[in-house]
Amino acid sequence: MKSGLSFLLAARQCEIRELERLAETGTLVTLVSRFTHALQRERGASNLFLAPGGQRFAAQLQEHVAQSGASEADVRAHFEQLDIVEGSRIPNGARLFSRIAVVLHGLESLPDLRRRVAGRALTLPEATAAYARLIANLLAVVFEAADSAGDPEVSRALIAMFNFMQGKEFAGQERAFGATVFASGRVEAASRQHWQHLIDTQQGCFQLFLDFSDPAILAVEHASHDPQALAEIERLRRIGLYPSPRREVDAALSQDWYEACTRRIDSMQAVENALASNLRRVCEREIERAQEGLRDQRALMDSLEQPEGGVPAAMPGRYGPHLERSILGMVQEQSRRLQAMSDELDTVRAALNDRKVVERAKGLLMAHRQLTEDEAHKVLRTMAMNQNRRLVDVAEAVLTMADVLPGRSH
Amino acid sequence: MKSGLSFLLAARQCEIRELERLAETGTLVTLVSRFTHALQRERGASNLFLAPGGQRFAAQLQEHVAQSGASEADVRAHFEQLDIVEGSRIPNGARLFSRIAVVLHGLESLPDLRRRVAGRALTLPEATAAYARLIANLLAVVFEAADSAGDPEVSRALIAMFNFMQGKEFAGQERAFGATVFASGRVEAASRQHWQHLIDTQQGCFQLFLDFSDPAILAVEHASHDPQALAEIERLRRIGLYPSPRREVDAALSQDWYEACTRRIDSMQAVENALASNLRRVCEREIERAQEGLRDQRALMDSLEQPEGGVPAAMPGRYGPHLERSILGMVQEQSRRLQAMSDELDTVRAALNDRKVVERAKGLLMAHRQLTEDEAHKVLRTMAMNQNRRLVDVAEAVLTMADVLPGRSH
Repeated sequence: MKSGLSFLLAARQCEIRELERLAETGTLVTLVSRFTHALQRERGASNLFLAPGGQRFAAQLQEHVAQSGASEADVRAHFEQLDIVEGSRIPNGARLFSRIAVVLHGLESLPDLRRRVAGRALTLPEATAAYARLIANLLAVVFEAADSAGDPEVSRALIAMFNFMQGKEFAGQERAFGATVFASGRVEAASRQHWQHLIDTQQGCFQLFLDFSDPAILAVEHASHDPQALAEIERLRRIGLYPSPRREVDAALSQDWYEACTRRIDSMQAVENALASNLRRVCEREIERAQEGLRDQRALMDSLEQPEGGVPAAMPGRYGPHLERSILGMVQEQSRRLQAMSDELDTVRAALNDRKVVERAKGLLMAHRQLTEDEAHKVLRTMAMNQNRRLVDVAEAVLTMADVLPGRSH
Repeated sequence: MKSGLSFLLAARQCEIRELERLAETGTLVTLVSRFTHALQRERGASNLFLAPGGQRFAAQLQEHVAQSGASEADVRAHFEQLDIVEGSRIPNGARLFSRIAVVLHGLESLPDLRRRVAGRALTLPEATAAYARLIANLLAVVFEAADSAGDPEVSRALIAMFNFMQGKEFAGQERAFGATVFASGRVEAASRQHWQHLIDTQQGCFQLFLDFSDPAILAVEHASHDPQALAEIERLRRIGLYPSPRREVDAALSQDWYEACTRRIDSMQAVENALASNLRRVCEREIERAQEGLRDQRALMDSLEQPEGGVPAAMPGRYGPHLERSILGMVQEQSRRLQAMSDELDTVRAALNDRKVVERAKGLLMAHRQLTEDEAHKVLRTMAMNQNRRLVDVAEAVLTMADVLPGRSH
């Protein structure tokens, strides 16, 4: 018959298995992050190639496509080895697998996208948007992984990583958008709003990344700064966003803008690598801690064992009152520790809430107004820009109005 | 190479496994509920036995002890067959196992408690409190099970069950408390507050039970009412809580009170059984639905398979544009469904929040002021009664003050 003590050990073993599972998820996230980076570079190269006179970048584009292909193969190989038994151990395994299905489905269109870019059969914004969709699918996998982490430290590392990746993706979108605006020679009010939105959401993500990172990561981030590139970006943002009424925007700035942004984005890869190593280290450290706790508990239990033997495990009062108190202490300590972990996890995960609210509002708009995801997002973004409010506030308002909207499906 | 579609299926299979896991948890909860009921009856019998002249209830007490023993054996046998691999698949497996450790540790004191009751070596309130602690441990297991459910329908059924059990436990405590008050012949202000608190928290639990139950359960609940017993309880509550200033409380009322309460509590068992059957039915229905979804998806996928064969699964564009759209529809539909489920789960689980806030505040008080759990609970309860506020509001206030409390440990 199992005693209370054997369930204390079992609880520890559950923790260790959950952490091992998270370490595997960490590997998945790292591979997804590398592939995302490769796709961002491929998108950048395709932007150069699709710009007027961009044919000279054909070889460079080919190189980036090959690099993406290698990263894609790594991600696919990892997906391949995930099995369903494993998935059903993940708290939100169904959601994670569903996100992977979306990624794989999207990737089926990648060869066709590349063919059309190579044939210059797409506009630059079309190509950018197509890559952005694939990257959004990959980011959703990272988000789901962050959402499934049951350990507050690992959750923290995953949230930092997700927000950095998301911020970098907005930086990539800003690069493409700004380059198009400069190349066109003029800035319209709507463009200005969208540009400002890309800057704001980017900064929101990087702020969350900073909030959830430890000093070692912050040092890497600080060292990665390229002050010249940053100054150039700020100067060009100013020109692009607030052009002088008396003169047109100089189309030649497009090239300067693109190069400064590329330097900045490339320098971010060092931070992403540091985040990936940090994630691995955090998992290892937490596993080690849990194993140490398990060893301590085992040792304490061994010291409680009565060598005379023959006493049934479930027999009451088999330990003296002194030992009873140490067992009670152990049981209570574990409950308290798990409670504290669960509380901290709730606090940490609150950072994921904004995105969930936005997703929820999008889903509502899609159901009510028969919109695609892109369209629903655009509706929210436009509302936010017009009302000069944060996306999440507009999303909250949409959800609040849900009950009074006509034709509510659920 | 796995395609997006195979991950769609894998996501469904994760859902099914998770539901099967919940069905097992449902069995555990049902056994725990029966054992809790048996312990409540045993406590009731021990109350009768410990009251003056209660020796004549010795045989009845023995009978209840034997019934508890049988239920305890069932629960222990179920614990026995839980394994760690299984536990690590539960989102909060470590917490559940830790709660079981607390239960098993507490149960080691049960034989001694019974010996002391049999020897009349305990006061009635002492015996009541000792049983209440064991029952609180069992209820914590049910709460953890409710907190781990990833399916909104199952979560709803578990929350209804937990709240009914908790309400019934407060009813049991009120029975013992009122009987003692009547037997003493007088009601002091502090007793009145505690009695009122037992009524209020009881009603809060039953209200949540009503909110989370379907019409079939509500019908059973309605049929279980014993209007005579209820009227008698309300009459005696009025006498006990607002005794006339000119006369003492009649000690003979203790017996009437006890009997009316016992009739009411015994009638609740029918509702608890209905809740247990409902839980089983909900799990079965959800598993069936998920399996049906899986079959539909498989059928659709089979119809998409190209009979020519030999086309690698990951090859892009292998489906025509029409089929591509149905696949995309399937992928999107699944994402939306999982998102909607996750949203609903968040809404449903909000009902668990009050208890979590109270637990958190207790943990804080225990750490700061070196209190036991019982003492911490008493501090909160006293604050709530003195300020005439709900327990959860006082707990919120304690947590808000956490940062400014001295000697904060984390």
